[in-house]
Amino acid sequence: MTRLKIFFLTFSIVAICIFSNSKAYAQAQKQMVRLAKLEIDSTHLQSYKIFLREEIEASIKLEKGVLTLYAVFEVNKPNHLTILEIYKDKKAYEKHIKTPHFKKYKEGTKDMVKALELVETLPLIPNMKIK
Amino acid sequence: MTRLKIFFLTFSIVAICIFSNSKAYAQAQKQMVRLAKLEIDSTHLQSYKIFLREEIEASIKLEKGVLTLYAVFEVNKPNHLTILEIYKDKKAYEKHIKTPHFKKYKEGTKDMVKALELVETLPLIPNMKIK
Repeated sequence: MTRLKIFFLTFSIVAICIFSNSKAYAQAQKQMVRLAKLEIDSTHLQSYKIFLREEIEASIKLEKGVLTLYAVFEVNKPNHLTILEIYKDKKAYEKHIKTPHFKKYKEGTKDMVKALELVETLPLIPNMKIK
Repeated sequence: MTRLKIFFLTFSIVAICIFSNSKAYAQAQKQMVRLAKLEIDSTHLQSYKIFLREEIEASIKLEKGVLTLYAVFEVNKPNHLTILEIYKDKKAYEKHIKTPHFKKYKEGTKDMVKALELVETLPLIPNMKIK
């Protein structure tokens, strides 16, 4: 291989790497990342969990644009939970809240939720995953 | 293939599926999942972010047992952040806080952190990922 060929090959590989990284970064920049903080009526906690699990599993399975709904319950306040919600973009979120599974959850749990706070956030490292 | 062979093949496949799923589930059950809620001195926010990013990137790269450190800053209170921390197990966490990169972060940011609350949690769906 001539030096020129080697140069062009290296240049092309580097260019592809930069392009694909910047594309992934640009996509990540459009993400909608939110913390939902909820307090649940303790007497309905088990029923609430069933509704939430069903809703999350359906969203992850059926909606490409729902990247995660990671829900955690506090050990010392078992009726307090936080959900890390990541959507591909705002459009994916708008679509999500119109799905039958979201509506079923929202309607089914409306008397169980004592408080709901939605906190818009910006991730420090937008492409972060869970191993 | 005889019926008996088909039966044993099917049985083996089902058994392997159950075993590998239950193994993954048992591993996930041992995870340590936490929310770290921090308030940063606004005058040091940019320096703090540099320290945190360096610490997270090193932890994810060098420590198998650190499954995620997903940090988000609130849009309306930019000096308030939450980190979803997932460790493989308690041992992985104990190891993490002894690493040079964690110690560098802790020492470097000790005058920047105005408040820190560590909240132990239980995930609703332990194997949840980020797409």
